[in-house]
Amino acid sequence: MKIYHAPNTRSVRIVWLCEELGLDYELEMFKLGDASMRDPEYLKIHPMARVPALADGNVRIFESGAIVQYILAKHGDGRMLPDVNSPHFSDYLQWLHYAEGMIMPHVNILVVETILLPEDRRNPVNISRATKQLTRALGAVDQALEGREFLAGEFSGADIMTGHACTVAARLGADISDKPNVTAYIKRLNDRPAMIKAWTVGA
Amino acid sequence: MKIYHAPNTRSVRIVWLCEELGLDYELEMFKLGDASMRDPEYLKIHPMARVPALADGNVRIFESGAIVQYILAKHGDGRMLPDVNSPHFSDYLQWLHYAEGMIMPHVNILVVETILLPEDRRNPVNISRATKQLTRALGAVDQALEGREFLAGEFSGADIMTGHACTVAARLGADISDKPNVTAYIKRLNDRPAMIKAWTVGA
Repeated sequence: MKIYHAPNTRSVRIVWLCEELGLDYELEMFKLGDASMRDPEYLKIHPMARVPALADGNVRIFESGAIVQYILAKHGDGRMLPDVNSPHFSDYLQWLHYAEGMIMPHVNILVVETILLPEDRRNPVNISRATKQLTRALGAVDQALEGREFLAGEFSGADIMTGHACTVAARLGADISDKPNVTAYIKRLNDRPAMIKAWTVGA
Repeated sequence: MKIYHAPNTRSVRIVWLCEELGLDYELEMFKLGDASMRDPEYLKIHPMARVPALADGNVRIFESGAIVQYILAKHGDGRMLPDVNSPHFSDYLQWLHYAEGMIMPHVNILVVETILLPEDRRNPVNISRATKQLTRALGAVDQALEGREFLAGEFSGADIMTGHACTVAARLGADISDKPNVTAYIKRLNDRPAMIKAWTVGA
């Protein structure tokens, strides 16, 4: 498998997953905002010029949540994925989707407003609104983690998605000072050797 | 099953799916932005006070993409869901996730900036940026639909997610005038009796 990867982007999720599963992969490296993502060759892989994307045999697939589900279904041997009859199945799906549904839209805004835009075009109203929403979105995760180590039973693909999203949200300014479960969860995930590898490869 | 539903929200997707599958459901109705979504009883169902949510026996689940996957896995009898060995499996996952990953973040901004905020707090820069991004995001869908009726082989859960997102995006001002495939796709989906029912129930 080939992972189209840039440090500090959603493609960290895919490297992390492959490291957790002990799967072989090669990396094609980009940087965040790299102009070469808009090369015609890469646009055939990802028409929106983003990472991650994955090549696996003849398959080309993008969207990190889709890639997580694809890899677990094809190469996971049942690991990190509750069975459809498991009591954790609905939580698994819910928190797998929560990352992009509830957390990352505000992360996107903060990346644009605090990193990508030149300073004179940044808007403090947008920053304050996104930070507030992000803090709220992490509140629901904090509640769900009460008495639990992971979001859906054992460590799973849901933690790859929402765990990564929580980590990024906290780095960008979401307030987790009153969220002990999320704080411990972020530390727990970021102490995993596979996650350490994923954050550092190519960085 | 009980669907927590409000007209003109993402919960339309769940009603649409149940109608397509001929599944029985009851509705608990809200309105977009309804204060009663913040009642303590409903916050136990959805901690972010949103729709859709689904109750099915003892299961409570939110996030529309998760609910689509849950219903198809539990009650779909293999319909609208390519098998893991199907050549359409990766496209299915990709376009299932594309709706929230690439389209809806910009839709969210347009809903806030053109509907929810009072006029004196709306920001034309945000509106113009989101509209431009939305138009781009629909460009990739237009390309994928070249020579195809649906996004992943037969009509599937991916069309529920990204088809709904395209419809909403076009209504909010994404430019589809140069996107004949998306234009025809939106019409094709919105002519389906199940979709007509989903748009009108409780509205």
